[in-house]
Amino acid sequence: MTNGQGHHLSTGSVSPPLVNGKLRLYSMRFCPYAQRVHLVLDAKKIPYDVVYVNLSTKPEWLFNKHPLGKVPAIELEDGTVLYESLILAEYLDSSSTTRPLASSDPLQRAKDKLLIDRFSQFIVLFYKIYSDIDALVSEDVMKSLDEFEAELSKRETPYFSGTRPGMVDYMIWPWCERADMLVIVAGDRFVMPPQRFPKLLQWKKFMKEDEAVKASSLDASDHVKFLKSRESGTPDYDMLVS
Amino acid sequence: MTNGQGHHLSTGSVSPPLVNGKLRLYSMRFCPYAQRVHLVLDAKKIPYDVVYVNLSTKPEWLFNKHPLGKVPAIELEDGTVLYESLILAEYLDSSSTTRPLASSDPLQRAKDKLLIDRFSQFIVLFYKIYSDIDALVSEDVMKSLDEFEAELSKRETPYFSGTRPGMVDYMIWPWCERADMLVIVAGDRFVMPPQRFPKLLQWKKFMKEDEAVKASSLDASDHVKFLKSRESGTPDYDMLVS
Repeated sequence: MTNGQGHHLSTGSVSPPLVNGKLRLYSMRFCPYAQRVHLVLDAKKIPYDVVYVNLSTKPEWLFNKHPLGKVPAIELEDGTVLYESLILAEYLDSSSTTRPLASSDPLQRAKDKLLIDRFSQFIVLFYKIYSDIDALVSEDVMKSLDEFEAELSKRETPYFSGTRPGMVDYMIWPWCERADMLVIVAGDRFVMPPQRFPKLLQWKKFMKEDEAVKASSLDASDHVKFLKSRESGTPDYDMLVS
Repeated sequence: MTNGQGHHLSTGSVSPPLVNGKLRLYSMRFCPYAQRVHLVLDAKKIPYDVVYVNLSTKPEWLFNKHPLGKVPAIELEDGTVLYESLILAEYLDSSSTTRPLASSDPLQRAKDKLLIDRFSQFIVLFYKIYSDIDALVSEDVMKSLDEFEAELSKRETPYFSGTRPGMVDYMIWPWCERADMLVIVAGDRFVMPPQRFPKLLQWKKFMKEDEAVKASSLDASDHVKFLKSRESGTPDYDMLVS
């Protein structure tokens, strides 16, 4: 369902009708925020269909769904549209009882949200890959991950959420999947040292075997290929569509 | 408890011991994000004591509580520290059953969170009061509030959360209280037209009568006085301490 099928709809396209019994997800194949929502839907096995959107030449109808014409957004059967990846993840988790991803304990939930919030430090640095990669100091990147290594040690579980991936794992995963892009684009100084990140590297290995992760994950080389097309001025949104 | 008592602690101060049976809130008297947490605590009548912090000359111990040395932060009786106003508001609401502020319905909760998120448009504009007030276009400010007027009309209730203030009301209130600063500082073009905002102006009047709001609210003139002291380079954190 999420393995690169489906062209990205552009300006002039028609808004596809909703599919009976399925939730609609508006997405872009390479968007990490959209991937967060794919991960939650796939982990919880919530039936959904995907409409991919070309973000360079946006369909006019997208602005009827999302005031700013962004993805991810979900549309419910009654036409209600919701957006913002973290709000969506939480809504999907709390509205469907299959496999809860967030902790039921308010304090643990707050701690997990803080951890997800702290991850934005890494995200901010990561985005220099699009703007100013030469100015990116690898030690800054490593430092932003130290507390995640420490947290896994402290929690003494393979995943942040325990013995299975949960909300923290899925919300930070899209950028962890893309972290190898830094190595390809900017060199070996961005390789995570195994002696500094034993737990986090093991976690990454485990995550790659998770069914929900497998459903939307891409190789770093594909991420880089898309990045290069984006840098050239014409992002190749459909590069994985056969 | 929150009416301007208490000096703001500075560099060199000693971290005050926790008070038995009370939650500790680290705050700054004029900080709208901290006010969000005061509002939730006061609305839910959760016992707490406040330590006010001078954000220009921060106490060294603040960085042991919050990695970035920011307020608001709360400290629980076991020493756990949590921060980020929205995470705090949600934690306090879900961990204490007195007067729930958020909806128990996942969809309504998601819609409310989106509304709070959309309010950041107003917040971003509002902060030009500190940087570039002359460049602030009043119509942009009014436009950012149109959807809140429309939402109140749609919900057909005096408050966003119904017949009593709830999460949306309290989370957006601190900047609504400060909106009159724009009029004082930048002139009448920032007066909200009654024919454009009948519901929102009525809401504001109702909110000012709310007990929790009264506990932390300040007149626009005091907000401006603090703003001026801040602009002069020495924010007068203790200006309300008698």
